[in-house]
Amino acid sequence: AYIALTPGDGIGPEVVAQAQRMLDAVAARYGHTFRYTTHLIGGCSIDQHGTALTDEALAACQSADAVLLGAVGGPKWDDPNAAVRPEQGLLKLRKGLGVFANLRPVKVHHALLDASPIKPEVLKNVDMVVVRELTGGLYFGSPKGEDVVNGQAHAVDTMEYTESEVERVVRLAFQMAQNRKKKVTSVDKANVLATSRLWRRVTNRVAADYPDVTLEHMLVDTASMKLIASPASFDVMVTENTFGDILTDEASLLAGSMGLLPSASLGESGPGLYEPIHGSAPDIAGKGTANPIGTILSAALLLRYSLKLEVEAAALENAVEKAIHARACTPDLGGKLSTSQVADYMLEQF
Amino acid sequence: AYIALTPGDGIGPEVVAQAQRMLDAVAARYGHTFRYTTHLIGGCSIDQHGTALTDEALAACQSADAVLLGAVGGPKWDDPNAAVRPEQGLLKLRKGLGVFANLRPVKVHHALLDASPIKPEVLKNVDMVVVRELTGGLYFGSPKGEDVVNGQAHAVDTMEYTESEVERVVRLAFQMAQNRKKKVTSVDKANVLATSRLWRRVTNRVAADYPDVTLEHMLVDTASMKLIASPASFDVMVTENTFGDILTDEASLLAGSMGLLPSASLGESGPGLYEPIHGSAPDIAGKGTANPIGTILSAALLLRYSLKLEVEAAALENAVEKAIHARACTPDLGGKLSTSQVADYMLEQF
Ligand SMILES: CC(C)[C@H](C(=O)O)[C@@H](O)C(=O)O
Ligand SMILES: CC(C)[C@H](C(=O)O)[C@@H](O)C(=O)O
Repeated sequence: AYIALTPGDGIGPEVVAQAQRMLDAVAARYGHTFRYTTHLIGGCSIDQHGTALTDEALAACQSADAVLLGAVGGPKWDDPNAAVRPEQGLLKLRKGLGVFANLRPVKVHHALLDASPIKPEVLKNVDMVVVRELTGGLYFGSPKGEDVVNGQAHAVDTMEYTESEVERVVRLAFQMAQNRKKKVTSVDKANVLATSRLWRRVTNRVAADYPDVTLEHMLVDTASMKLIASPASFDVMVTENTFGDILTDEASLLAGSMGLLPSASLGESGPGLYEPIHGSAPDIAGKGTANPIGTILSAALLLRYSLKLEVEAAALENAVEKAIHARACTPDLGGKLSTSQVADYMLEQF
Repeated sequence: AYIALTPGDGIGPEVVAQAQRMLDAVAARYGHTFRYTTHLIGGCSIDQHGTALTDEALAACQSADAVLLGAVGGPKWDDPNAAVRPEQGLLKLRKGLGVFANLRPVKVHHALLDASPIKPEVLKNVDMVVVRELTGGLYFGSPKGEDVVNGQAHAVDTMEYTESEVERVVRLAFQMAQNRKKKVTSVDKANVLATSRLWRRVTNRVAADYPDVTLEHMLVDTASMKLIASPASFDVMVTENTFGDILTDEASLLAGSMGLLPSASLGESGPGLYEPIHGSAPDIAGKGTANPIGTILSAALLLRYSLKLEVEAAALENAVEKAIHARACTPDLGGKLSTSQVADYMLEQF
């Protein structure tokens, strides 16, 4: 299989390197051959090419079986008014791969109950996945930009959906729920937004095809509360791009550390995009303390969804489980190991 | 002074009635005369007039010194595709009063630490106020609606700001911070949204006029995490309408119950609008168990901001404080009292 690596900025290269070591161990143990190419994305690409993702890098990713990404951005490229910005590379990659559904599973590890700001009794039985729409909504609608109206600066962004854009991502959420706890919570703001009313109508229609799955609608403000107040009540949550961005960062509190959470972005066909949900963490970049687990679990999702290697995916997840159980962790989880030592530990047990 | 009451739907009338009793007690004790008129808003107005807020009701509110609102909405009017919906009344009232800044203070009461899903040590020293932009952003931008493109349903909402819309609400946030802990956290999504880049630029410019206040910019996804992970680090948070809607419901977790939190919506001049942040809670409407505290604290803010009666406002807040301390509360806070008994208790002590 051919895997394109886009390590990006900050701690991105550090965590992707460890995930690659784990993938190599999987290949060795199960008799696979993984071929890799590495491409610039984000700030490092701006520095070298003047753009956050070159067309060549995108084409390489498009021809891969899967893409493993680190993170983009950092203080060096932080001016929000600059014409080229690191995040443009990430958005171009998502759009270019057509990965409309971003899956963010959230589990609570028993050994990490202490690490969360939330009371342990609330965290019991949390096992959910957020399906975030990734190539539409407020991120991509047009018009988007700034002009001058009556002598004043004026800016707009557009939240925009067509029926089929909603349908494909909602359908995927229902399919996931069928293999899980059989519940879908669709999050919107239908009492204010026209896009949400379309979203809700389409969701109701799609739901009819999945009679074994219970559908619940929830307003996004209520969801931001319930996510912390009664997280165990959720199974699959599906929502708009921006809402999903906000809610998944919030949901990371349940797991105890952002550094733990993986994501998989899938399209109709073609390569999937796998990335930890954390950012480039410039404050700890180069220090060897970044938590590699979010990226290693993203690699596991890559094995599962893009390469259809379920046994291998489970083996990686099991290695992570053991490391957390043994507290073989980086400082964000109260451990003492470095980024590479966490992978060392897993490889010894593997 | 002349106070317009818009009790609305569900538990709205129950909680507004108790707040009015408290206002009457304030009037008696401090020698004021409060004159009231009552107006339909939301579902009850739809039932009677076919619209969620009549022009007459709006005009009455506009001519008052302040407006005290309960809540709007309920299952009876819940079809998101109906042409008239309860929330339209609320949005029309906010826009019609020009109340562009919605202040939502969040405090943690020592006696209520148990009621929160968050660990008590995280809640220490929490004392913040969210300033939510209320008459612009994604709620009000145009175009908003649905059409058909290439034979497919297609919907749009528009997030839209002019420079002066951002400036006035951000300036108010800085002014509040000057009288508090002197820190403003401006929340946006400047790495993706054009409106956020304008927001950030204007905020930086305004900040120069308040050299004694520290300004921090935070992405909305990060904010949804930090709000729970380190809530005591915030003083004044200022943000776009939708972001504020999501983040303030989330922030209510800090206080232990949505039923506790008041809000004040202010404009350049003219009457302020005061409402609890909770909804119409149709599930408990008519049962006499609704928590009146959010509305009573909203009445206190009404005294403070619209009537400039600081001593009276503090007296009301003190009465609430004492009731919570004595656990003279409704069931949502682990108490046994009914809605009116909570006010009875406060009035006895008053
Ligand atoms: C870096 C940024 C553009 C990105 C997003 O908002 O999607 C990130 O926050 C994420 O959640 O993957
Ligand atoms: C009822 C609804 C329109 C309203 C809003 O979204 O503003 C409510 O959620 C609030 O926060 O006051």
